[in-house]
Amino acid sequence: MAVAVDLGELIERVTSGQPRAIARLLSLVEDDHPRLREIARALAPHTGTATVIGLTGPPGAGKSTTTAMLLSELRRAGHRVGVLAIDPSSPFSGGALLGDRIRMSAHATDPGVFIRSMATRGHLGGLAWATPQATRVLETAGFDVVLIETVGVGQSEVDIVKHADTTVVLLAPGMGDGVQAAKAGVLEIADVFVVNKADRQGAEATVRELRDMLAASRREITGPRWRQPIVSTVASRGEGGGDLRAALEDHRRWLDEHGELAHRRQQRARAEVEAIALRQVRTEFGRLAGGEAVRSLGTRVARGELDPYTAADSLMDELKH
Amino acid sequence: MAVAVDLGELIERVTSGQPRAIARLLSLVEDDHPRLREIARALAPHTGTATVIGLTGPPGAGKSTTTAMLLSELRRAGHRVGVLAIDPSSPFSGGALLGDRIRMSAHATDPGVFIRSMATRGHLGGLAWATPQATRVLETAGFDVVLIETVGVGQSEVDIVKHADTTVVLLAPGMGDGVQAAKAGVLEIADVFVVNKADRQGAEATVRELRDMLAASRREITGPRWRQPIVSTVASRGEGGGDLRAALEDHRRWLDEHGELAHRRQQRARAEVEAIALRQVRTEFGRLAGGEAVRSLGTRVARGELDPYTAADSLMDELKH
Repeated sequence: MAVAVDLGELIERVTSGQPRAIARLLSLVEDDHPRLREIARALAPHTGTATVIGLTGPPGAGKSTTTAMLLSELRRAGHRVGVLAIDPSSPFSGGALLGDRIRMSAHATDPGVFIRSMATRGHLGGLAWATPQATRVLETAGFDVVLIETVGVGQSEVDIVKHADTTVVLLAPGMGDGVQAAKAGVLEIADVFVVNKADRQGAEATVRELRDMLAASRREITGPRWRQPIVSTVASRGEGGGDLRAALEDHRRWLDEHGELAHRRQQRARAEVEAIALRQVRTEFGRLAGGEAVRSLGTRVARGELDPYTAADSLMDELKH
Repeated sequence: MAVAVDLGELIERVTSGQPRAIARLLSLVEDDHPRLREIARALAPHTGTATVIGLTGPPGAGKSTTTAMLLSELRRAGHRVGVLAIDPSSPFSGGALLGDRIRMSAHATDPGVFIRSMATRGHLGGLAWATPQATRVLETAGFDVVLIETVGVGQSEVDIVKHADTTVVLLAPGMGDGVQAAKAGVLEIADVFVVNKADRQGAEATVRELRDMLAASRREITGPRWRQPIVSTVASRGEGGGDLRAALEDHRRWLDEHGELAHRRQQRARAEVEAIALRQVRTEFGRLAGGEAVRSLGTRVARGELDPYTAADSLMDELKH
């Protein structure tokens, strides 16, 4: 049920950086509020005012501590930083895992930091579309850096970090990460690598393995080529934060100089528009013939009476009428 | 470029179980051959003739050895078994990881077994739509059990194993699997659990943890409730294969008795039809205004001149005209 919201006032309060208003607007955006279109119109002019940094990697690599370290580093440099921590909800608890938020508590009282743990209600893929709007909320609130942290290394995480200007992939020694991350296609999307827990045994081997893989990759790249740096950190002791920030600034400079920033942002806006439209199409499919069209096609395909392509054609025909 | 194919002859050879013909038809299905619609019509009548078993779990749990053990077990019971091993391609090698195929070589000369390692070209999600057609190819070839094995535990793997009648989730002790699997939402989709490497330290603890999580879950289930069994195996020594097969047969019986088999198959046929139609929509989006519509909307959204919802609306309008 829609709750009456004075959107104009809410957005004004977000613009002046009030944390409760920011949290409220983020909820409206995540919950697919009926007035999402109005909200979207109000947020649009703020699009692109923040640098968006994505951070991903396998569980146990130390994403939360690294995010916390990076936060401190960026604050020291005078940035206002919003964090979107994307935790898949446990299907058992029904809620988001809270570890990240707890570890971030050092920043809890800093008005220059806003941390949001986004729940996923069991479907991580669903967040790919909410992330850009959530980013605009933080931009509207005046944050000039938005950190998107995702848990895991699957395709959905890759989809989420595609919303970033710069993507950081985190590894740690002794997890068999190399092969594991390669399998999930995460290495492909890295602009900066961090080998965290660099004080542990095997850290040098991990850096070496990574370097070899990068050298061997010879990927087909159109346009200018960025050489991904590998930064060693011990995030739990705050070591390497400066190096990481420097690597991020280098990449941002490279993006600007090569026209890649505008290109990436256009690409992701395009993907966002398509995702919203496809969602709309799916909704319309579900409503065809009072909700019966898809169901009856499914039944006939399951029985082998109809092939799925012919069924899909008839769905398309109905959509267009 | 389309290669001339005598489809009628090819499908006849598939029907008589010729391995090279099966491999060829699988390639056509995976490669989205221009005559896919014809192929789909020929395959449709064979839909639903095999029991489809999905097998997933985190890397290192022993999926390949477990699949090999289950294969032997099913062969002993007189089944003809097709295997679809879904390996994400390494972005570096460009090809599928071959480990699974090599480990399956014991079955390489058995005409009652057909093993297909499906490449993903860097996008695992893309295979969710090819899997049901590949399954129909194996059904057409007379296999009465189809095993779908996926690597990893992300959302895409969940999408793939949704094509199964029965889904097996594999864990192993000492991998922190419990939490990891829960995060990825894999536990939700399990019909049968296997704790492999049951001779290792921590195996009992893993079983206990799993049992506690299941007890705590109190999931909202509509219709009759299946109690997921936990089977302990040492697949590398062939131990527990009989128990696993018994658990699979129990589940199949339960599905039949409760009308759940037809329900699941209708649900997945419905999802398949929708996925094909959505792909078609995406293709049509890309072609609007000679390919310029999506691009120019993306640019305007990236610049903040237009919000993404209004942009999506205009894409929908163009699609329907």
